[in-house]
Amino acid sequence: LVHLVTGGAGFIAVTLIKKLLEKGHTVLALDNLTRGNIAYIEPFLKNPSFTFAKVDCADLPTFRTGLLSALNGRRVSDLWHMAANSDIPAGGADANVDLRDTFMTSFNAVVLMNEQRIPTIHFASSSAVYGDFGRTEIAETSGPCTPISNYGAMKLASEAQISAAVELFAVRANIFRFPNVVGVPATHGVIFDLLNKLKKDPSILPVLGDGTQQKSYLHVSDLVDAMLFIAEHGQNKLNIFNIGATDVGATVRFIAETVKATASPTAHIQYGVGDKGWPGDVPRFRYSVKKLTDLGWSPRMNSEQALRLAIKEIAAQMGM
Amino acid sequence: LVHLVTGGAGFIAVTLIKKLLEKGHTVLALDNLTRGNIAYIEPFLKNPSFTFAKVDCADLPTFRTGLLSALNGRRVSDLWHMAANSDIPAGGADANVDLRDTFMTSFNAVVLMNEQRIPTIHFASSSAVYGDFGRTEIAETSGPCTPISNYGAMKLASEAQISAAVELFAVRANIFRFPNVVGVPATHGVIFDLLNKLKKDPSILPVLGDGTQQKSYLHVSDLVDAMLFIAEHGQNKLNIFNIGATDVGATVRFIAETVKATASPTAHIQYGVGDKGWPGDVPRFRYSVKKLTDLGWSPRMNSEQALRLAIKEIAAQMGM
Repeated sequence: LVHLVTGGAGFIAVTLIKKLLEKGHTVLALDNLTRGNIAYIEPFLKNPSFTFAKVDCADLPTFRTGLLSALNGRRVSDLWHMAANSDIPAGGADANVDLRDTFMTSFNAVVLMNEQRIPTIHFASSSAVYGDFGRTEIAETSGPCTPISNYGAMKLASEAQISAAVELFAVRANIFRFPNVVGVPATHGVIFDLLNKLKKDPSILPVLGDGTQQKSYLHVSDLVDAMLFIAEHGQNKLNIFNIGATDVGATVRFIAETVKATASPTAHIQYGVGDKGWPGDVPRFRYSVKKLTDLGWSPRMNSEQALRLAIKEIAAQMGM
Repeated sequence: LVHLVTGGAGFIAVTLIKKLLEKGHTVLALDNLTRGNIAYIEPFLKNPSFTFAKVDCADLPTFRTGLLSALNGRRVSDLWHMAANSDIPAGGADANVDLRDTFMTSFNAVVLMNEQRIPTIHFASSSAVYGDFGRTEIAETSGPCTPISNYGAMKLASEAQISAAVELFAVRANIFRFPNVVGVPATHGVIFDLLNKLKKDPSILPVLGDGTQQKSYLHVSDLVDAMLFIAEHGQNKLNIFNIGATDVGATVRFIAETVKATASPTAHIQYGVGDKGWPGDVPRFRYSVKKLTDLGWSPRMNSEQALRLAIKEIAAQMGM
């Protein structure tokens, strides 16, 4: 039995695959390598329990052929659907990006679950499905979901299709609503962007927005730990969980100052105007993870601890 | 300025177009005529304020070309997006039906709003976005939405894309979560199905499920009245409203008995087993319309009154 990981050469999949292999599972990773990087999964390639195939999951015939060829007669027990566009502003500029990479990958994953009798899907959803709730704390029961980015819209669309699949044929689905996740290998995100700016000019650190944006951050090691915990302990056919830190989060100001202290202590931080980094950005965010803590899981690191560790790791990854 | 109605030859559009024309608006109706019927809008064709074009809105180039050609230089002020698959069981058997007709029509409508600078969209969503809340009363703030049909999933996906559009470029969006709607011209639905069965054999009326399914029903004249009321009085850029009767609904047993009394009083009603008519059917349903009544609108008919009128109208339409 095989654990299938779509988006298998992406940021979060790298940590997920490592832990699945440690647990003794056989893993097949698929990725179209547009945002994922084969270098990230290089270390797994010598493990006989691991297979990788370059496959574009947004195209159903390609996905089906690539999957069946790589499976070579084996069956899939668990589909970890991680493939998605990860560049939210790019999806705002062109709605087709998230239609294709964030939604059609999910739609096709569900079609293949039905066709290939894959019982269980674990889906990397996002807190972006909620939209801007202002200062209201967001629980899984909060509604209506009014996403303010095409990325969030297509994550919600994916959840919806998976939810219907659970009624129609699927045995089980776990939907993880991710917070902002930090760690390595970083490919995008606020830390990555800030460090890149300092790499170009160590004397000045321009920040999008006024620095007051406050969000909850989780380290990728905690995130994957939570996913595996929910996969093991979720009680229902369809389990929807917010995953996040238990604190109220950290500000962009904290991130900028920690990046500066780590990479270029003499840099001048130059803040922008307004509390949104870009259209579709959610300025502040109170995320309830009570359902998850009630199930028995808590993160090891709070937002600021996760950020401090990730900034160190990403600076090292970038040779700074 | 033109009011554009997609799915313009469908059940609800017929009443909507009638009222828009009565209000003095210019109306352009588009429909691919797969489920809609040109006969329904025949009476409008002699009205100089009305134009119809056969266009498949699920295909973007076709939609764009057909729209621009029919507009002939005019601009759209309001897009009433009514096009969708209306056959929920068909969408359960083949997910591509709702992907194409329920979601891609919406995605393309949003793309063309952006391209053609159409400020306002009014969207025919559905109570099916919620899924099965059991005996819990469903308000707009209820969550999480866990649709149990591909139809409900693709309506929720459409809502999500519209919600993001409001953040990114759209001026205004009204999302109407329809209940079960009854009236003429009937093309599908429980009344239509039951009358068809009696037409084939007036002596026996087989009913899906045990007849205890209880839902709220609204007459199409009340529904369109509510849509126009929300369009005029909604307070926000994005207005999401449940539309429905204010009562707890009527049972399938009530419908079967009224159909029998209207069309074939001597027929024997034969109930099935279980409280779901088909996979994806929601057995009972408590629908809060407090947000709408607080805004100042109430339906003229309750569920049983709406059903009685619709059964009379549909029987007449079918020559019974």
